[in-house]
Amino acid sequence: MKKIAVILSGCGVYDGAEIHEACGALLALHRAGAHATACAPSGPQMHVVDHASARPVAGASRDILVESARLVRGAITPLASLDPGDFDGVLLPGGFGAAKNLCTFAADGAACLVHPEVEAFLRGARAAGRPIAAMCIAPVILARLFGSGGAPSLTIGNDAATAALVTAMGARHVDCAATDVVVDDGARLVTTPAYMLAADIGEAFASAEAVVKKLLTLC
Amino acid sequence: MKKIAVILSGCGVYDGAEIHEACGALLALHRAGAHATACAPSGPQMHVVDHASARPVAGASRDILVESARLVRGAITPLASLDPGDFDGVLLPGGFGAAKNLCTFAADGAACLVHPEVEAFLRGARAAGRPIAAMCIAPVILARLFGSGGAPSLTIGNDAATAALVTAMGARHVDCAATDVVVDDGARLVTTPAYMLAADIGEAFASAEAVVKKLLTLC
Repeated sequence: MKKIAVILSGCGVYDGAEIHEACGALLALHRAGAHATACAPSGPQMHVVDHASARPVAGASRDILVESARLVRGAITPLASLDPGDFDGVLLPGGFGAAKNLCTFAADGAACLVHPEVEAFLRGARAAGRPIAAMCIAPVILARLFGSGGAPSLTIGNDAATAALVTAMGARHVDCAATDVVVDDGARLVTTPAYMLAADIGEAFASAEAVVKKLLTLC
Repeated sequence: MKKIAVILSGCGVYDGAEIHEACGALLALHRAGAHATACAPSGPQMHVVDHASARPVAGASRDILVESARLVRGAITPLASLDPGDFDGVLLPGGFGAAKNLCTFAADGAACLVHPEVEAFLRGARAAGRPIAAMCIAPVILARLFGSGGAPSLTIGNDAATAALVTAMGARHVDCAATDVVVDDGARLVTTPAYMLAADIGEAFASAEAVVKKLLTLC
């Protein structure tokens, strides 16, 4: 049974992991006979967003790991406790949490910093030759970490401004439809636009299924 | 296109709507060509549970509607603003939120009170002849509201203690496997155990698909 680390970033599109994308990935992994280990860094989210109004809540604070646990009925593991060599692959769902909590892309763009636990895990996975999948906005993390090492191909859909930032970080951006994937076989990266372009929950789940299927073929 | 009101109760199994069940129902409705209107009552949840430790958080407060909005990327409607006659059917996902926020079953058992907005909407739907589906623990709400009106058949899986409370509220409990449904054609109720019995995310989504398919045949 292939073991995949799924790195979550909270619970909810505006301040955490996108719920449909995360569930779609977990469901696709289960149906493909893979074992998912859901994990997340600990520490406060960048902020908390009221998802009914889409406005930040002044003074509120929530922990990335604790909120991520909602997506997996409590079965969450601290990212810092995991060794990437123990997994066959890694998957990052999207949602603003990927760009706010796992790195600072939402605030800093191409100059973003990646959360040190996320950076250590992903660099370790790459050094061990493990394939990495990322959905929606999460590919910016891969661009930041691996862009300078050979211009890997990846996608965030077709948004020109975001694609320009991906390029500025050294990666090669490839336009892609919502439910398709971009594969860099050499860099062992698989990316999909998901809700960067998906029009509905059906496309989000289709995107998740596509990226999981390709990831597992690389494991 | 059939219109289904999906009544949410927060976001996370221990204090809100069960995320896999809610996403499974929304995905199944979408794939069947139905239109889902996600809605919830406003007001504080019974409590907030840290899903990593499964312990309540002292002094914390979250709003049922605002947290429910996370499940649908902000596309949430106040339940009180909706007329059940405008819908072809109703669906309630499970999670402890159904038993803590939509009614007081978690605290009061068979003597529970149903949230007045939920009661008004469900009684209106029933009076208009609309079918109602419920997953996991949410069927206790149907037992409480409609149990005294003809002993409708429903299921919460096979837990003897919970089934006894369902019976005490006047409904007839039918044991059921995780991904099957119990249908009362006369009362127009469809129920499924989902995570009362489901062993994994695959069974939760299969349960959601089964209950949605049956609900739509009754619309």
